Amino acid sequence: MELGLLYSGGKDSTLAALLLKEFYDVTLLTAHFGVTDDWKHARATAESTEFTFERLQLETGVAEEAAEQIREDGFPRNGIQMVHQHALERAAEEGYDAVADGTRRDDRVPTVSHAQAQSLEDRHDIDYIAPLSGFGRTAVDCLVENTLDVTVGPSEEITRADYEAELRALLVDSAGEAAIGDLFPDHEQTHVTDVR
Amino acid sequence: MELGLLYSGGKDSTLAALLLKEFYDVTLLTAHFGVTDDWKHARATAESTEFTFERLQLETGVAEEAAEQIREDGFPRNGIQMVHQHALERAAEEGYDAVADGTRRDDRVPTVSHAQAQSLEDRHDIDYIAPLSGFGRTAVDCLVENTLDVTVGPSEEITRADYEAELRALLVDSAGEAAIGDLFPDHEQTHVTDVR
Repeated sequence: MELGLLYSGGKDSTLAALLLKEFYDVTLLTAHFGVTDDWKHARATAESTEFTFERLQLETGVAEEAAEQIREDGFPRNGIQMVHQHALERAAEEGYDAVADGTRRDDRVPTVSHAQAQSLEDRHDIDYIAPLSGFGRTAVDCLVENTLDVTVGPSEEITRADYEAELRALLVDSAGEAAIGDLFPDHEQTHVTDVR
Repeated sequence: MELGLLYSGGKDSTLAALLLKEFYDVTLLTAHFGVTDDWKHARATAESTEFTFERLQLETGVAEEAAEQIREDGFPRNGIQMVHQHALERAAEEGYDAVADGTRRDDRVPTVSHAQAQSLEDRHDIDYIAPLSGFGRTAVDCLVENTLDVTVGPSEEITRADYEAELRALLVDSAGEAAIGDLFPDHEQTHVTDVR
């Protein structure tokens, strides 16, 4: 069975791929808007794995809408959620038997509710799978420690390819560099450098 | 890392074991009250896998309380939920790094809420993992079809080792054979005969 996994090059989506690989032919899908070249970081990480890598082109209008939402809200949650749902819809249109992402049990954003999952499955006649949604934070940390080489740092300094990088770039253009620190409170993100 | 997985010999808990085996040393734990010998069905299935099998003794008082709850309610949901939570508590006391079960995204019972998972983890300093909770019914069915040989039939006729068999036996004693059909509406259960 062919499965398309939304892939950022971060530890969660890399671990998700490893959990699924015995059961599906996994393709790593890095969704991007064409705003920046950050997707290349995910491709570089993907090359250290055995998985096929593909870019998934998102609609620029959704990026602009999400950036506007983040400016209005003053925090990124709803904007990132909007982009993630769009990315899942796009992935579901690509003809895979199943689509998946790296959302964890303890994630606050993005989240995919039971109703959203069912709706995606019914509309596209596809399975939606969240292989990490039964794992808490410490369980994921344990698996990562045993399986991946990970670089950890503040979001601003590491090179990953989630939607945030492109939304930040759009917001620097529209709201200025100074606004970014307020809109995206400090948090650690990770970038996988190698799969053991 | 050592993981204890609540195991009935059914397709869900068998699939859960296969999903976890690359990451944990999995022990199959069949919880039982000592009311019937149904746990031997799970042991027989476990022998067709590569996993270690252990019995997990539950407290008889909990079985009696659950059977009483089912009689009062007129349906099994709350009683089975009560036993499952007790089984998770018992498994968490056994010294594993993590405990797991085969609950799926679309299961109505038993369920383990985010709050219950967090509480179990905090009180026992353990990870709780539900590897199938990110998989819907059709995804599980696909994986089972590709991975396991499964016998499907009405609950009354197949030989599995979930808590239901022992609760039924208790209820036959206390409420009579005729009550069982009313208390446990027909539903299909599965019993794994072999792992491919």
